[in-house]
Amino acid sequence: MTAEILCIGTELLLGNITNGNARWIAEQLAALGIPHHRQTVVGDNRERLIAAVREAAGRCRLLITTGGLGPTPDDLTTEAIAAAFGAPLVEHPEVWADIQAKITARGRAVAPSNRRQAQLPLGAAVLPNPAGTAPGMVWTPPAGAGIQPGFTVLTFPGVPSELELMWQVTAVAWLRDSTLAAGVFASRMLRFWGVAESSLAEQVADLLAGENPTVAPYAGAGQVKLRITARAGTAAAAAALLVPVEAELRRRTGSLCFGSDDDSLASVVLQLLRQRGQTLAVAESCTGGGLGAALAAVPGASDVFLGGVIAYANAVKQELLEVSLAALEADGAVSDSVATAMAEGVRRRTGATWALAVTGVAGPGGGSGDKPVGLVHIALAGPAGCSSEGVRFGSSRGRSWIQLLTVGEALNRLRLAL
Amino acid sequence: MTAEILCIGTELLLGNITNGNARWIAEQLAALGIPHHRQTVVGDNRERLIAAVREAAGRCRLLITTGGLGPTPDDLTTEAIAAAFGAPLVEHPEVWADIQAKITARGRAVAPSNRRQAQLPLGAAVLPNPAGTAPGMVWTPPAGAGIQPGFTVLTFPGVPSELELMWQVTAVAWLRDSTLAAGVFASRMLRFWGVAESSLAEQVADLLAGENPTVAPYAGAGQVKLRITARAGTAAAAAALLVPVEAELRRRTGSLCFGSDDDSLASVVLQLLRQRGQTLAVAESCTGGGLGAALAAVPGASDVFLGGVIAYANAVKQELLEVSLAALEADGAVSDSVATAMAEGVRRRTGATWALAVTGVAGPGGGSGDKPVGLVHIALAGPAGCSSEGVRFGSSRGRSWIQLLTVGEALNRLRLAL
Repeated sequence: MTAEILCIGTELLLGNITNGNARWIAEQLAALGIPHHRQTVVGDNRERLIAAVREAAGRCRLLITTGGLGPTPDDLTTEAIAAAFGAPLVEHPEVWADIQAKITARGRAVAPSNRRQAQLPLGAAVLPNPAGTAPGMVWTPPAGAGIQPGFTVLTFPGVPSELELMWQVTAVAWLRDSTLAAGVFASRMLRFWGVAESSLAEQVADLLAGENPTVAPYAGAGQVKLRITARAGTAAAAAALLVPVEAELRRRTGSLCFGSDDDSLASVVLQLLRQRGQTLAVAESCTGGGLGAALAAVPGASDVFLGGVIAYANAVKQELLEVSLAALEADGAVSDSVATAMAEGVRRRTGATWALAVTGVAGPGGGSGDKPVGLVHIALAGPAGCSSEGVRFGSSRGRSWIQLLTVGEALNRLRLAL
Repeated sequence: MTAEILCIGTELLLGNITNGNARWIAEQLAALGIPHHRQTVVGDNRERLIAAVREAAGRCRLLITTGGLGPTPDDLTTEAIAAAFGAPLVEHPEVWADIQAKITARGRAVAPSNRRQAQLPLGAAVLPNPAGTAPGMVWTPPAGAGIQPGFTVLTFPGVPSELELMWQVTAVAWLRDSTLAAGVFASRMLRFWGVAESSLAEQVADLLAGENPTVAPYAGAGQVKLRITARAGTAAAAAALLVPVEAELRRRTGSLCFGSDDDSLASVVLQLLRQRGQTLAVAESCTGGGLGAALAAVPGASDVFLGGVIAYANAVKQELLEVSLAALEADGAVSDSVATAMAEGVRRRTGATWALAVTGVAGPGGGSGDKPVGLVHIALAGPAGCSSEGVRFGSSRGRSWIQLLTVGEALNRLRLAL
């Protein structure tokens, strides 16, 4: 009794976008303990979509689709799935009302084409979409030849943010209650900063070979993750299996592990400051606001994060942060002396307990022999003074990667200081 | 006569990695003018791999596989493809000699398992791999029931760098000579802000029905896109087909279209300012630096973007932007008067030609009856004065979405003003 993923969209066949949805869902299914054996991509083509759905119905118990739920003529998923099993579409008035309310609340006009999004095959249940206009569905089509007993399809939008929120808010509970999961799974994601995936994997190689719990490494967006997954008869028993493995992993990795599950470096730093009743300000050059944005992305950041200065131009560093022209001329904008002056300046101007400052060469231009692309100076000012250090992220990964690593590295410095 | 892509690897089913190979091959096929209608992923499982190959043989003319060519027991691709058509494996002595030479040249010991990599199904030709040890193959299995006439399989390794080099050096010539290429494709992506996908689709409904060029809408990250794709005998002819359709789409949509292909709202705004020799500063409350980060994400932003102030806390609005306590107390931080004071303040402090300011309720907390979550005030100050307006993004999509829409909406205001 396994699952399959069917991603729908001509943009995937044309190579316009990478199929990140398939990877994301695959990871979620693995965490839920639902085995899946195939992923398929088809374009916005009615006949080929129907064929792919029929084939999947003959192989698997659960089909998860993404894409094709929008209002335009090439959004064919719901209609094609209904046609694959000869079911009529019926309008759900409460869905139509909800779609109209959502569109109106955004100050947009409701288009007649939006009404298609309120139709589902006869017998399908609505899978609510908290983020977008159109819901998905949960449907077990009528039994028939070439259909696995109990075959059920779940549809999701193709926009990753909508898919992910909808999955977590409305689908996970359904999947847990389904009979697909073999036992009950519990999992814990541990998050690491400042270590390569291969080094971490070597440090915990014996645990990666375990069967229950399993431990699997993931890398992405500058951080490395280890997911521990345990299976048992009850949720409590599964959770209990996680405890000794998590403790051992944390013991071996020490301060490299910055958090777990939904933690981000920003959320962990904000929580540490909140517990101390302390505040934070930032002064950013090469990240242009990315460090502040990472902090502001955390709900409730405002009781700790005061704000700061985006000192992209040197004149702004002087005017708003009181960085001296002498320091800028003697050492250049990318230097420990300027980073220090930026951190101390923003701390003084905002009255924050702590201040982080970053200044560097994000590239692709602007690098020089002694200040290459990827060189960033990070300063941390606090009650006990200010320290600054240069970090070299290398130029091979490009501008956005250097900015991302700078934000993470700065937050990690403050975390370790706390 | 179409192609399919089959990617093989349990790591894809576990969500450990994103299937970048499928996107890369899809893009290459589109550029070669070879239509492909399906992508499939299966794990390192012999029976399921055989089934997937047989199914593809019944649907398509060309099957491109990635992965499973290594020496370990879970590398099953060549063996399973041979088994799918009942063909024996035969060793190619020149391949075996080449594998041994490559491994020895790297200072490694040849393992007995490497010898498997010199075996191909009877009748298959070697597809040389310039980067890795093991070659792929080009094989047209014997004709049979359920096999498309001329069905041919090309195998590639799963390591992206090996796949890509092998594709370019050894496969492209074969594919061009094959009878699969039906002309050459050219495409253009037009990007829109401030319009819903459904409204835009209705505005251009007749063009969405076109067959060559095709026009397809996509939504994501607050923007809507229309992709125009044309097919012709030569690249120049395909590009020429795009021109009238693009012109017509731009004529109908006017200023809703902000750019094309790799443009972002930030890159377009920066370019408009650069042409005028003007500069920009930002003052951000609810986005916490996201607006600045969007500008700083564009290479070369520093000649236009000066920086600004992250005025998350009201004290920072007063201290660094000289927003009056009276305005904050009378109208609240989320108001046109405070947005205006922020924009004027940062423009004055930085000397920028233009200044954008945003202040709003990003949620999930902090909303009230007259200032609900999703309400954002956006002010634009420039040479001719300052204007501010409240926008309601609605609360349903959550904090990160409101922040993203705020950044886009602010940049779009400035774009329209320019």
